[in-house]
Amino acid sequence: MPENLPIPDPCAGHVPPHMTAEEFRSLGHRMVDWVADYMAGLGERPVKNATRPGDVLAALPDRLEDSAPGWDAVFRDLDEIVAPNLTHWQHPGFFAYFPCNASGPGILGEIASAGLNVNGMLWATSPAATELETCVLDWCVDLFELPDTFRGNGAIQGTASESTLIALLAARARAGGGDVSLITSRQAHSSVIKAAMIAGLATSPEDRRRLRLVATHDDGRMDLDCFEREAQALLDETGALPAMVSATVGTTGTGAIDDVAGIRARLDALAPGGRWAGWLHVDAAWLGAAAICPEHRLAGLEHADSLCLNPHKWLLTNFDCDLFWVRDRAALLRALSITPEYLRNAATEAGGVIDYRDWQIPLGRRFRALKLWFVLRHYGVEGLRAHIRRHIAWSEWFEQRVVADGRFELVAPRSASLVCFRLRAGDDATRALLDRVNATGEVLLSHTAAPGDGGFTIRFVPGSSLTEFRHVVRAWAIIAREAGG
Amino acid sequence: MPENLPIPDPCAGHVPPHMTAEEFRSLGHRMVDWVADYMAGLGERPVKNATRPGDVLAALPDRLEDSAPGWDAVFRDLDEIVAPNLTHWQHPGFFAYFPCNASGPGILGEIASAGLNVNGMLWATSPAATELETCVLDWCVDLFELPDTFRGNGAIQGTASESTLIALLAARARAGGGDVSLITSRQAHSSVIKAAMIAGLATSPEDRRRLRLVATHDDGRMDLDCFEREAQALLDETGALPAMVSATVGTTGTGAIDDVAGIRARLDALAPGGRWAGWLHVDAAWLGAAAICPEHRLAGLEHADSLCLNPHKWLLTNFDCDLFWVRDRAALLRALSITPEYLRNAATEAGGVIDYRDWQIPLGRRFRALKLWFVLRHYGVEGLRAHIRRHIAWSEWFEQRVVADGRFELVAPRSASLVCFRLRAGDDATRALLDRVNATGEVLLSHTAAPGDGGFTIRFVPGSSLTEFRHVVRAWAIIAREAGG
Repeated sequence: MPENLPIPDPCAGHVPPHMTAEEFRSLGHRMVDWVADYMAGLGERPVKNATRPGDVLAALPDRLEDSAPGWDAVFRDLDEIVAPNLTHWQHPGFFAYFPCNASGPGILGEIASAGLNVNGMLWATSPAATELETCVLDWCVDLFELPDTFRGNGAIQGTASESTLIALLAARARAGGGDVSLITSRQAHSSVIKAAMIAGLATSPEDRRRLRLVATHDDGRMDLDCFEREAQALLDETGALPAMVSATVGTTGTGAIDDVAGIRARLDALAPGGRWAGWLHVDAAWLGAAAICPEHRLAGLEHADSLCLNPHKWLLTNFDCDLFWVRDRAALLRALSITPEYLRNAATEAGGVIDYRDWQIPLGRRFRALKLWFVLRHYGVEGLRAHIRRHIAWSEWFEQRVVADGRFELVAPRSASLVCFRLRAGDDATRALLDRVNATGEVLLSHTAAPGDGGFTIRFVPGSSLTEFRHVVRAWAIIAREAGG
Repeated sequence: MPENLPIPDPCAGHVPPHMTAEEFRSLGHRMVDWVADYMAGLGERPVKNATRPGDVLAALPDRLEDSAPGWDAVFRDLDEIVAPNLTHWQHPGFFAYFPCNASGPGILGEIASAGLNVNGMLWATSPAATELETCVLDWCVDLFELPDTFRGNGAIQGTASESTLIALLAARARAGGGDVSLITSRQAHSSVIKAAMIAGLATSPEDRRRLRLVATHDDGRMDLDCFEREAQALLDETGALPAMVSATVGTTGTGAIDDVAGIRARLDALAPGGRWAGWLHVDAAWLGAAAICPEHRLAGLEHADSLCLNPHKWLLTNFDCDLFWVRDRAALLRALSITPEYLRNAATEAGGVIDYRDWQIPLGRRFRALKLWFVLRHYGVEGLRAHIRRHIAWSEWFEQRVVADGRFELVAPRSASLVCFRLRAGDDATRALLDRVNATGEVLLSHTAAPGDGGFTIRFVPGSSLTEFRHVVRAWAIIAREAGG
């Protein structure tokens, strides 16, 4: 068929209702407005609604509508079904868990990323996605004053859970594969146990053959004497020191900081030849953000084989954005590289490019560097420091109220912006207080078990970019009022 | 301090430059416009640029600027550094890999999700995020005519890689943990091998003790006689049949479809008692999307323990969105559930809610159900079917050109919208043809190795929502021209 004759479309009858660029422009503006209105009105909503299980399902139809409902209906459902049944993580009264903070620049990054929708699995499948990521992670090496050996060796992961798992896989590859062991503390994040289960080191959360959890001091720091005994026990029982130790810099419970250098020193002392060959991973998922301030740099990182910290927690970059660095990428690539024919390409074969699919669990990946780039450039280093510093100052103010009030006690020293406290009247009273405080809908706090005695402990940690000092004052006022006599 | 006196902010000097809702509104509109302009002009760009390794890094500064550059500079960098150095997956001439298709409704979903930025790790941390996800996955059980046992048992994962890994973990948990084996075909996706390495079944991609890759027919389908021999060999060598078999419905190479019912039947015949107790996972990552059409339903799913399919590939939902269902969630939860004190909550303890963190590798999760909900509602079932059907019709037209042209041969029968072909003149000629075709910048195709003889094979698969029939005609014209005499 000559090229200059029109060829009839063999499927002209089927025309999907794709949005034109102009339709998208109009609806996109409307959605941005919806988000802006949501942000502007967030303080007026309860942080958490009284949604009962099944409420949302009951409000949704059992089946997709037969005909498109139109966008007015979609926006109405966002207003009437979705928004009223969320826990509002960006609410100025959200002091629970660790924050998961969005920001204008972060959202703009997600819009750009969604619009481009490239898959950066290989350098060749989107060079700019790969090299921008390498670039901003190198900037962060400077911003957080990380060891120079991390330069060029960073990647964005979805979450710290994935970083911990990947570190474990690299540790196992470096140890030559097979049965390896992992030590962490009892206050380490649950994702360390989950990683051990996924990688096959433990058959259940309680399986302690190759996953050892070390006792902590009352404040949540790993007890190095207990650690040394556990490492020695592993050596005696399995013939090898742990292939990986996961140290926590800022535990989820109380924000405690493990002694990274001390861990390495104890292991070196036990190792034949005085040099432990295993992998020391540092999980600074939450507290690592504070290291952008000179007064909060992370100590002992020169002893770390890998590090993760999450800008999606406390550094204004929309979820998900976990930064992961390794000292030596060879073990990591050995653990995760597979190249089927359909992914072979000239750039990879020639070397000299990074294919980030070999640095992560999945194959495909979103262009997440954009949102971090936008956040860093919009705020600048001083803006980000101000964000961290005022939360810490506010938490210091809050801590002083707790200390000054005889009904309360601190469970552990304040760690950066995290204050852990309870009523002297005991667990039941503290639990009831938390329930009453959260029932106001004005604030939301969460709880943990005290590392020392396991007692019920309330956690207070600001993080939302919408939080102002008055919200902290109000939170304390509610707590003091609800604590009663 | 009495509550009615103003309390001075202890950190009034540090004010981060947060965007106000109004600033976000204005910049959000601008970013939406940028995306709309990108979409509108995409056909005028080359699909893939001649970026050399290091070009992007060289265009970026070594360090974050000392002062905020302002958004004009950020948009300029998007235009001048980012966009010209991407591979444009949404380009109408993109026929490579499998598609990764965005759509207007999908992008709107990402905007809403980024604006809310809730963390749906637990039902309690955002009920609407959890229940909307359950709802739309149940809708999909109907839309794709999946077994009723999948109802209420679906979750959104990031990628099929994660689904395969999770299925393997569930299979191992069901088998009681410890050393288990996995069988798949040589044409299965590389993520199956990666999952085996992550879970500890294989120490390298070549380790075949507990990971067996079965030969395929020349078209890429698993050879069931070979499969049966491999299962018998495993039984003889390890004392157990595989704990998991991963069947592929639409291989990455040629779109071949494994016989799911036949796999189950062969295993049952080998099992003591006539009933294999292992886990049959079906990876329909790409082809599963077509099952929204009655003429493309997936066969044999009543024999599957789990299934994944990716709306982010061919169903207009922005990356990442992989749908994962299990028949029986108990093994999955046994493999992945850990509840530290800081995540305990009344709704979870009472039962009756889904906590999706127990269905996935990470703890935290984005609100990804929104974009799928928007896509389903905007397009409706007939709109999505039209999208699938016209791609298939276009590929059928393309296949006819290949068959009618004596210089070419099909490597395997067309599978839905995927056509695999090569020059009869051999591998070198075919490779050179692909290079010339892609060098035009008008289209991008990728390659694979023929399942039968390993020969160099060009893959053609449309997927972008911007592709029209004229782009398919143009692709063929370029290929026919560049093929020479």
